[in-house]
Amino acid sequence: MKSLYIGALDIGGTKMAATVANAQGPLARVTQPTVKTGSRRAPAEQGIALLEAACAQAGIERSRLHAVGVSSCGPFAQIDGMVALATPNICGARAQRADLPNDWDTIPLEQVLREQFGMVSIENDCVAAIVAERTFGAVRDEPDCVYATWSTGIGFGLCVDGRVLHGKRGNAGHAGHMLMSDQSDALCGCGNRGDLEALISGRGLGARQGQSARDLFTAARNGEPAARAAAAQAAQWFGRALYNLTATLDTRIFVIGGSVWEHHGDWLTPIVLKEIEMRLPVLTQGVSIVPAALGTLVADIGALGLVMPPDWISQWRDTQPWGALAALSMHMPAA
Amino acid sequence: MKSLYIGALDIGGTKMAATVANAQGPLARVTQPTVKTGSRRAPAEQGIALLEAACAQAGIERSRLHAVGVSSCGPFAQIDGMVALATPNICGARAQRADLPNDWDTIPLEQVLREQFGMVSIENDCVAAIVAERTFGAVRDEPDCVYATWSTGIGFGLCVDGRVLHGKRGNAGHAGHMLMSDQSDALCGCGNRGDLEALISGRGLGARQGQSARDLFTAARNGEPAARAAAAQAAQWFGRALYNLTATLDTRIFVIGGSVWEHHGDWLTPIVLKEIEMRLPVLTQGVSIVPAALGTLVADIGALGLVMPPDWISQWRDTQPWGALAALSMHMPAA
Repeated sequence: MKSLYIGALDIGGTKMAATVANAQGPLARVTQPTVKTGSRRAPAEQGIALLEAACAQAGIERSRLHAVGVSSCGPFAQIDGMVALATPNICGARAQRADLPNDWDTIPLEQVLREQFGMVSIENDCVAAIVAERTFGAVRDEPDCVYATWSTGIGFGLCVDGRVLHGKRGNAGHAGHMLMSDQSDALCGCGNRGDLEALISGRGLGARQGQSARDLFTAARNGEPAARAAAAQAAQWFGRALYNLTATLDTRIFVIGGSVWEHHGDWLTPIVLKEIEMRLPVLTQGVSIVPAALGTLVADIGALGLVMPPDWISQWRDTQPWGALAALSMHMPAA
Repeated sequence: MKSLYIGALDIGGTKMAATVANAQGPLARVTQPTVKTGSRRAPAEQGIALLEAACAQAGIERSRLHAVGVSSCGPFAQIDGMVALATPNICGARAQRADLPNDWDTIPLEQVLREQFGMVSIENDCVAAIVAERTFGAVRDEPDCVYATWSTGIGFGLCVDGRVLHGKRGNAGHAGHMLMSDQSDALCGCGNRGDLEALISGRGLGARQGQSARDLFTAARNGEPAARAAAAQAAQWFGRALYNLTATLDTRIFVIGGSVWEHHGDWLTPIVLKEIEMRLPVLTQGVSIVPAALGTLVADIGALGLVMPPDWISQWRDTQPWGALAALSMHMPAA
């Protein structure tokens, strides 16, 4: 099995990362700021170039990559029946902001990758995260679980009956855009008023509270009354959203990551859990919350998990070779 | 294949129905008011007795039933790892009402049926309905679809990536208890304030509008201004809920039944669709709404569909033998 190699791409609004691995673990990882100019094919072509650089770093031919898994920021659109990106972080025509030097509406991804690789699996970053946490993280083999990230934005990856949900265009899990309030005028980047992301994302809190989410939660924990009320209310909204998902999907366990939860999950958990448990016991009894286990590399690990031969998994669970990913990483300047 | 028989139970809060069928179609159907007194095993034992009566009607031995599919009102609990009912329509200890002459908290179902039948599949009535509509109804073979019933209550059956969702205790689809409003004090039977069922179910509308949902929608269609405003607002809430499910599950098509939709779906559809389409085009583009095709027998057909050999399906699609179910039905007085 030593001769089988897989590749992974993590496509974010800020940076892109390419990893190659064999049965023993990751061999190389290369990162670079995400390309946002040139042809609409440029980001996908950057991904291919980074996979090539990671292969070179590992001393193997790119042609030996058996399959490529991709974790990408969303949402996704389709071009000719294949996954394309329509993300406001990369596509200038999708964003209400001036700092994106392109007029892309959608950019092809699956199509460009399939020209080079025989087997390609692309999922939203939170979908890749629930794959990672179920395979190597905090909810191993759990059939009914949801990954949530609470950070600049809010996103979810859903698993029901042992199967990770994808949806008609791969956008299952965009419950950050679930409407929660009918009286708040909090405005989301997507145009919704009163959706979860508008109410509690780092971006939304910053816009409405006049301080970063980090400062807000730190002040709350230091006992500053106004910050404490705002932070507790944000936690209640998050809890109401997790309750809504429990009622919808009959979830057993939530695994939560993102910068807000990493720093303040201990303080937030009892408030959030109470919002779930106080409602409909027959649905919510036994629901639990655990912190994500794989940290900032969850997307890379999830992208590998999308295409990993099943017989690698038990060995990786023993040796936890993803721990070497950060040390392996080579950062390249912008293209 | 003529010698293979399957059974189906439809367990509702008011009546229970048992059907037997072979490859050619349903052979007999027996209904009876649901038993609500005696031992906690009484409802499940009633189901067995009704299956026996249906077999007698069809002239076959009960022992020849290959499998039994069950569509039941929920929510479900578990007893010894098997499906039990915790429904407020049947279990006196679950209801805030005086007309249930028992103190049942949960009642065993799967356990009692498995003592008599080798193969038993039990699903919530809306889950059975999406099985029925995907197999024989309005959304045949559609991978990403949701069944919704808008009637006395509100319920959903969910299908993503071609698989019907079940959840940790078979309660996936209870999105009627999704929290929608943070300013309404509309009270749901489950204790929630401002959930979808409190806001727009027939029960909820009746309690708050002082007239039945049927009268309200009829008055609205006749142009009575207050009724028109209330009915349009209910339609908007329903549309917001379908949008929330679209964002969560990346649904392509909603198939809608229940008495409100049966009578007023034509008037409601444009209002509901607008609430979906006005939000996040990349998620909602191409989402459509169709009326349920199988009417009041959807639960029976779904229960049969849960255990039907796959090779029966194409023949039933051609001959539509479920059309005979109503004529076959024999009504028995209360036990």
